[in-house]
Amino acid sequence: MEAYLDNSATTRCMECAAETVLRLLREDFGNPSSMHAKGVEAERYVREAKAFFASNLKADEKEIYFTSGGTESNNLALIGTAMANRRAGNHLITTEVEHASVRNTMKYLEEQGFRVTYLPVDEDGIVSVEALREALRPETILVSVMYVNNEVGAVQPIDEIGRIIRKTNPGTLFHVDAIQAYGKYRILPKREGIDLLSVSGHKLHGPKGVGMLYVDRRVKIRPILFGGDQQKGLRSGTENVPGYAGMAAAARVCYEDLDRKVERLYALKERFVEGVRALPDVRINGRTGRDSAPHIVSVSFAGVRSEVLLHALEEKGIYVSAGSACSSNKPAVSRTLSGMQLPKEYLGSTLRFSFSFDTTEEEIDYCLQELAGLLPVLRRFVRR
Amino acid sequence: MEAYLDNSATTRCMECAAETVLRLLREDFGNPSSMHAKGVEAERYVREAKAFFASNLKADEKEIYFTSGGTESNNLALIGTAMANRRAGNHLITTEVEHASVRNTMKYLEEQGFRVTYLPVDEDGIVSVEALREALRPETILVSVMYVNNEVGAVQPIDEIGRIIRKTNPGTLFHVDAIQAYGKYRILPKREGIDLLSVSGHKLHGPKGVGMLYVDRRVKIRPILFGGDQQKGLRSGTENVPGYAGMAAAARVCYEDLDRKVERLYALKERFVEGVRALPDVRINGRTGRDSAPHIVSVSFAGVRSEVLLHALEEKGIYVSAGSACSSNKPAVSRTLSGMQLPKEYLGSTLRFSFSFDTTEEEIDYCLQELAGLLPVLRRFVRR
Repeated sequence: MEAYLDNSATTRCMECAAETVLRLLREDFGNPSSMHAKGVEAERYVREAKAFFASNLKADEKEIYFTSGGTESNNLALIGTAMANRRAGNHLITTEVEHASVRNTMKYLEEQGFRVTYLPVDEDGIVSVEALREALRPETILVSVMYVNNEVGAVQPIDEIGRIIRKTNPGTLFHVDAIQAYGKYRILPKREGIDLLSVSGHKLHGPKGVGMLYVDRRVKIRPILFGGDQQKGLRSGTENVPGYAGMAAAARVCYEDLDRKVERLYALKERFVEGVRALPDVRINGRTGRDSAPHIVSVSFAGVRSEVLLHALEEKGIYVSAGSACSSNKPAVSRTLSGMQLPKEYLGSTLRFSFSFDTTEEEIDYCLQELAGLLPVLRRFVRR
Repeated sequence: MEAYLDNSATTRCMECAAETVLRLLREDFGNPSSMHAKGVEAERYVREAKAFFASNLKADEKEIYFTSGGTESNNLALIGTAMANRRAGNHLITTEVEHASVRNTMKYLEEQGFRVTYLPVDEDGIVSVEALREALRPETILVSVMYVNNEVGAVQPIDEIGRIIRKTNPGTLFHVDAIQAYGKYRILPKREGIDLLSVSGHKLHGPKGVGMLYVDRRVKIRPILFGGDQQKGLRSGTENVPGYAGMAAAARVCYEDLDRKVERLYALKERFVEGVRALPDVRINGRTGRDSAPHIVSVSFAGVRSEVLLHALEEKGIYVSAGSACSSNKPAVSRTLSGMQLPKEYLGSTLRFSFSFDTTEEEIDYCLQELAGLLPVLRRFVRR
């Protein structure tokens, strides 16, 4: 039996998305910049994909931009707004638990002369809104907070953060990295005070190499790639029509009957959490209820190194992550877990289990059963 | 009947590439950054794609990087080396006839304080090597010249430019935008003195949204996107495994039996050029022999506006471009044609016909026949 429980790293592309990609690769393959019918037809696919995201976010098509993925969306949001609004101030705010594509972009902006405040989180990985209130300054041009943390599934108080920003300093832009949230949460940027929102295709059963960035029409933003001025000059480069249409097709399916699917995901998560809690010497990091993401569980196993357990599970056909998979094989210490003040002995003993709408009870039970069998064996051989 | 003669805008994805994409979307869908078997397998596909390009360019796998397309490859090459080598000098050299993804990136670098020299071209669109010799300075850190011009098919003297740079100022980097050349020419960067080389997937029957950048291992270059440090930190973001493998599959087929296919393409081009020359009041822009690209012909039709003829041909199922399709529907004056000193009356009367290995004699003959029929009719209605 196999259990793919690494869906926060990437998901299997769903059939309708794969078929859309395939059709646009070999049949309707035009370049949207061409003036003839094949170009017009290709442009229509791009417009339809934008229309889906606009309607899903209750936004305008003109506020939807496509990119090459979540990393580019985050880079464009941060660098694009920081550089365009430099005259208004040079202060940026983010959190200690952001994905590397926000954290390292912030580091780059620090090199460019911006001052960055990193907000702390509590032991559940939730960002402190008090700290945000204190950090906001008239010269703060951008706040960037992720919706769902990719390592522990903590859900940040986006609504409240949006309200605080609008009340304290309405000129400050609010960027939300929704890469782990979109497809599982209904997000309405205009209601939640979000000015920019990042989405990735392959995290929601769409193709890899494609992402989306929502940009409120009032946002001043500069491109980070230069060329033929596609997408109103904000994102040059021939549009990846198959990718955009494939991502939209996948997102559309995710949002069909969403409540029931999310309910089912929470039931799976509860089943897993309950099973894990029955194991000796384990610790679940962060919240596990409806105030946490339905698809991510972070578990520390006392006395067992992450990689050892990861590979033991792999031999049983169970695929999980040690920390976040997005950091290119680097087994560095997790900033999310250390930000949550996880005791040192647990830092190197943590695995992430992440589910998708395709995950089954059988996979959960199989994983629990193998964990129960493996842990005593592995712990017996641990050096003390 | 249909004739798709806009292959320099984009090509139909070939079957083996489309099937590779499809398989990696729905079956081997792992994230190369995952530590388990599905990640390792995905990483193997990335490595195999790199190995193909390395072997094709007689380079090292470590010198191959994947991007989201030609535009990003050109941006990364230019911004990445300019910023990394700023201490060595602030002078850049390019030509007056580059693609917008080089031209507009150079404009951005000018805003960042770099000085850029734009080399003129002759009436055939060929860059002046004399002007290059005069422009090279000790503080010149980068020269960027395209291999094949996308609007008229002019082939630049890359070999000679490489020699001049190495002789005059061996510290100067040489970037070649090979987006219209790769797949039709055998390119050996190390022999030709090329330090960076840009390639696009969808111009060679591969998928859209994917490109390649060759970077000689001695080149100092900085990333332009920040995140999880994939691809040795030069290009963060989850690797688009289906895209990279699909592009490599297409490129591999392009280079199989290349000489015969290119020979056939030149025969098609000659057939087309001969037919066009038989029409009254036309002008072919640039060279048409073996010293020009095998797949691009630029033709000016006296007294007929490009868009009018383009749409008249479209009604017959013949798809071509007015100038370059890569400039997002903007019918601006072509810099290549004005750089070639094309008489003003021809500037707005020019179409680009571009072929691929799939183009047939029937398509060529059909296009010639319809041109012969349409031109007298369209000219009769021209305002004088």
